[in-house]
Amino acid sequence: MPAHRVVIVGGGFGGLHAARALRRANVDLTLVDRRNFHLFQPLLYQVATGGLSPGNIAAPLRAILKRQRNCRVWLANVTGFDVQNKQVILDDGTLPYDTLILAAGARTSYFGQDAWAAEAPGLKTIEDALSIRRRVLTAFEEAEREPDPGRRASLLTFVIVGCGPTGVELAGTLAEIARHTLRQDFRAATPREARVIMVDLAPRVLGAFPEALSSEAQRQLEKQGIELRLGAKVTNVTPAGISLQVGDHEETIASSSVLWAAGVEASPLGKALADVTGAAVDRQGRVMVQPDLTIAGYPEIFVIGDLAHCVDKDGRPLPGVAPVAMQQGTNVASRIRARLDGKAEPEFRYTDYGSMATIGRSAAVAQIGRWQFRGMIAWLLWLFVHLIQIVQFENRVLILFQWAWNYFTFSRSARLITDVMPEGHIPNERQPGRVAESR
Amino acid sequence: MPAHRVVIVGGGFGGLHAARALRRANVDLTLVDRRNFHLFQPLLYQVATGGLSPGNIAAPLRAILKRQRNCRVWLANVTGFDVQNKQVILDDGTLPYDTLILAAGARTSYFGQDAWAAEAPGLKTIEDALSIRRRVLTAFEEAEREPDPGRRASLLTFVIVGCGPTGVELAGTLAEIARHTLRQDFRAATPREARVIMVDLAPRVLGAFPEALSSEAQRQLEKQGIELRLGAKVTNVTPAGISLQVGDHEETIASSSVLWAAGVEASPLGKALADVTGAAVDRQGRVMVQPDLTIAGYPEIFVIGDLAHCVDKDGRPLPGVAPVAMQQGTNVASRIRARLDGKAEPEFRYTDYGSMATIGRSAAVAQIGRWQFRGMIAWLLWLFVHLIQIVQFENRVLILFQWAWNYFTFSRSARLITDVMPEGHIPNERQPGRVAESR
Repeated sequence: MPAHRVVIVGGGFGGLHAARALRRANVDLTLVDRRNFHLFQPLLYQVATGGLSPGNIAAPLRAILKRQRNCRVWLANVTGFDVQNKQVILDDGTLPYDTLILAAGARTSYFGQDAWAAEAPGLKTIEDALSIRRRVLTAFEEAEREPDPGRRASLLTFVIVGCGPTGVELAGTLAEIARHTLRQDFRAATPREARVIMVDLAPRVLGAFPEALSSEAQRQLEKQGIELRLGAKVTNVTPAGISLQVGDHEETIASSSVLWAAGVEASPLGKALADVTGAAVDRQGRVMVQPDLTIAGYPEIFVIGDLAHCVDKDGRPLPGVAPVAMQQGTNVASRIRARLDGKAEPEFRYTDYGSMATIGRSAAVAQIGRWQFRGMIAWLLWLFVHLIQIVQFENRVLILFQWAWNYFTFSRSARLITDVMPEGHIPNERQPGRVAESR
Repeated sequence: MPAHRVVIVGGGFGGLHAARALRRANVDLTLVDRRNFHLFQPLLYQVATGGLSPGNIAAPLRAILKRQRNCRVWLANVTGFDVQNKQVILDDGTLPYDTLILAAGARTSYFGQDAWAAEAPGLKTIEDALSIRRRVLTAFEEAEREPDPGRRASLLTFVIVGCGPTGVELAGTLAEIARHTLRQDFRAATPREARVIMVDLAPRVLGAFPEALSSEAQRQLEKQGIELRLGAKVTNVTPAGISLQVGDHEETIASSSVLWAAGVEASPLGKALADVTGAAVDRQGRVMVQPDLTIAGYPEIFVIGDLAHCVDKDGRPLPGVAPVAMQQGTNVASRIRARLDGKAEPEFRYTDYGSMATIGRSAAVAQIGRWQFRGMIAWLLWLFVHLIQIVQFENRVLILFQWAWNYFTFSRSARLITDVMPEGHIPNERQPGRVAESR
């Protein structure tokens, strides 16, 4: 009898953990992804701010899975599903499965205002991170040559929409760059003139954290000179800046660098699967899954990670974070093994080990179980947890070295403005919002 | 009296060495570049083959020059020169000088066949290197999914045009990747099926080296399974492959990855300067300079590096290599200091310390003074010389670590295919020659 064919769509935290947990199972495993690498998204903001290179936080899927002989990696683009014939539809063929694990993740959401995407890059991909890096560094470069004070102020104003962990990490690092890293680098403009402004509709930063840690994070952000606009609704984003509504009050901030860390929506593959199976999707496009992570009527189709809407025992949806995806991946793998062995499937129950966010140099907040941490201790905890999770040993050591170096020297060596210009062309168009946004 | 204004165009080896050598001079120095970083070009082939990340071999010009208070860095695009009014013309302004140092370097030349550029990327910029990396890795990925043996062979055939040091280094590394790095990574295609073919019109590899080292390099290349087509003229390059003429014999090689390491031509700024000063340019567009590195009639304009046609005492033009540019940069700086002090200018005489090329793992050839080296010793020499030259301490250590890691594990961690696709799009179009060549 040929081995049971398992197809995993997506090589993020969920898909990769499912694949790894099936390494000793008698299955014929195919991991399909549009990209040839696994991305360690929690450190993407470090690439966006020049502290790490893309190669430091991404590892080729083939390299991770090279010794897992029951698994092949397929670089391909999934466009839909033929659930009757149990086939994944690719843009150039099909891929048959006996069991399907859909783990295609999420992408940046502009809440229906897709026109804002061109003005305010999100932070979900390597290309996003390099686009933000290019935009921020170009703004400092142009400020150095800009004689008009108003225009220079706009260049040196960085607005971050979204006060979740990603927004807080970006803001903290930008403030650090302006106040320390670039201090001696410029002659005319002063990076210390830079303003970093955070915007959120929510009344507090890190809304998913306990209130005490929220206020601690806010205190640390303000200590770094970061301005907060809480309870503020974004009404427009243009190349000239961003418009906000705070209560009855309206405000327009001139800024050439608006960065978007505000929200995500599910991969369109969730909707594609729902359309052919009758499964429901929630407002963010996530597929509603049953307690066993399958969709109703299709026991052979699992949906996990950011693409799944899965509720805990109190009926609250689980957050879109890496630990949920990893635990779901492992659970699905155990279920598949149990089915093949004719045993009972293990229940899925999410264990929340806590959450943490870093706020620049030596500052962070963390909740682990019932304990709360802040400042240097939280920062070291954050460092430790992230380092041990990075997939490959090499990356771990390199990143540790790079961080140690950055920490002690205030340097950020990956500050390259790349991908801006064809030969003989211009890196410094006067509208940074318009700098060639080729990918 | 205001300080003497020196403008340096170009932050490569020549321009940067000139700037550094002026650090104690009483000058008002501006270094203009289109890019915000200095690129260590000798290691670019390592980025193209996934061994190093761009951040490892590039350092922000501002970071290098941050403590040099008499120097400012200007990220701008130079479009021409107003030599009467002593101004450099930018696309958005002008920059006055008392002394001008033009060090704008060279770019890939297709010998008038510009249409080939799209099919056969060169290796002069970070973007070039990432484009080659994308093309090579995509070819392996597509071969894995390609059922047709002919098409698979074409995907796994890599043709390198040019047998100088860059071509030899690229070929050696590609052979190493196919035979070692990727050996376990694929299931259907076998990377060991890969062919690496080198093409050159010259009758031997490394034509600028002594004959003994040329034959040694050829022996080492062939030992790695690399095929050589010497005395071969390229007659066409298309998405399907490359056509050659060897004597009366014609040959077409089906290949989806033709890489161009064959020639360079001067930056168009050389021609722009010649047009307004009446200076002569040679066939590659290099400006003919006088023994003092100025152009006739304009003692305040120096041209150095790959952009200068400068002859040694026997009348032979100096090669376009980093040591020439660095020594010229230092000499021009000394001349400027001498002029300001009313002293005699030091003569320029190029000291040739030798040349070296690496041929993949533990193999290299080197000539240093009258000594010739080969094999492991030459390779260690090559490693040593390149490491001590990299500008920033940090990069040096990181690269050493990365190399040690790559060497002992056969791994190449920066194997990321990036910049291929807008959201929801396709990384694997069936024509790799046509994969979105966005920069």
